[in-house]
Amino acid sequence: MIKALVSVLLVLAAVSSAFGKYMPKTGKRIPQTLSRGWGDQLVWAQTYEEGLYWSRSRNKPLLVIFHLEDCPHSQALKKVFSDDNQIQKTLDDDFIVLNLVYETTDKHLSPDGQYVPRIIFVDPSMTVRADITGRYANRMYAYEPSDIRLLISNMQKAKKLLKSEL
Amino acid sequence: MIKALVSVLLVLAAVSSAFGKYMPKTGKRIPQTLSRGWGDQLVWAQTYEEGLYWSRSRNKPLLVIFHLEDCPHSQALKKVFSDDNQIQKTLDDDFIVLNLVYETTDKHLSPDGQYVPRIIFVDPSMTVRADITGRYANRMYAYEPSDIRLLISNMQKAKKLLKSEL
Repeated sequence: MIKALVSVLLVLAAVSSAFGKYMPKTGKRIPQTLSRGWGDQLVWAQTYEEGLYWSRSRNKPLLVIFHLEDCPHSQALKKVFSDDNQIQKTLDDDFIVLNLVYETTDKHLSPDGQYVPRIIFVDPSMTVRADITGRYANRMYAYEPSDIRLLISNMQKAKKLLKSEL
Repeated sequence: MIKALVSVLLVLAAVSSAFGKYMPKTGKRIPQTLSRGWGDQLVWAQTYEEGLYWSRSRNKPLLVIFHLEDCPHSQALKKVFSDDNQIQKTLDDDFIVLNLVYETTDKHLSPDGQYVPRIIFVDPSMTVRADITGRYANRMYAYEPSDIRLLISNMQKAKKLLKSEL
């Protein structure tokens, strides 16, 4: 009997705690993820500072994606990027990754302007690899979904680290 | 018959696509969330730049939490913070929120040093509210779980916006 009572109380406690949690008037929201769909199995840095820290301390290049949720070019690139196992595995093994929907204050991350989608590589020596570009002269760090092989070859280029000057 | 075949093919496609996705050798990871447990129902800014942008454009104060996943003081504060419905509702209605595990390059966010947990308010005029402090003279922006009423009263203080200087 006491056992049953304890069980009932435990259930009540669990229920009231579940109901007691704050809930927006507009209904339950799905918590935002750091991956934003660019690779749910990768460990994403939250900020550029964090990305630089991990890049330096693990001696791995940093790949920074600038994108927007409501930009169809970003969405199309994200689809092939997240579906490509070679990209995902290489990033997981050899890179620090960061995706941003807001620009940073660091001008080096926009060598030819602020546009999306744009992919910038940074060496562990904290040097932005402005030399690693896509195929468009007017938007040198832009990639289309059909440029995914070029992106993979650029990742290989970024893996050959610059001589550290630190 | 053709319908059945189509169904089988669709199932096969779904299965192979599910199995085809990149998986780390160490097993499936749970995607990281921006809330990090400080309030799953809140809409978190990812970076300080993003927080400032939303604060200015929505004319709401920004609350910045500096914390560490392996700091017991941070964890204890997080527990009462995320469980407190008054805090969560007020933040959802009237604040822009950001939690960081890495320091930014902006010195204004560490008026008396870099320590965790630390809570800093920023006015929509982009002024760090160094005047809104906790109860510890040596760590003026630290809060213990027992200081949660003080934190709520500080949130009320932050809601009285400074006269915008912009």
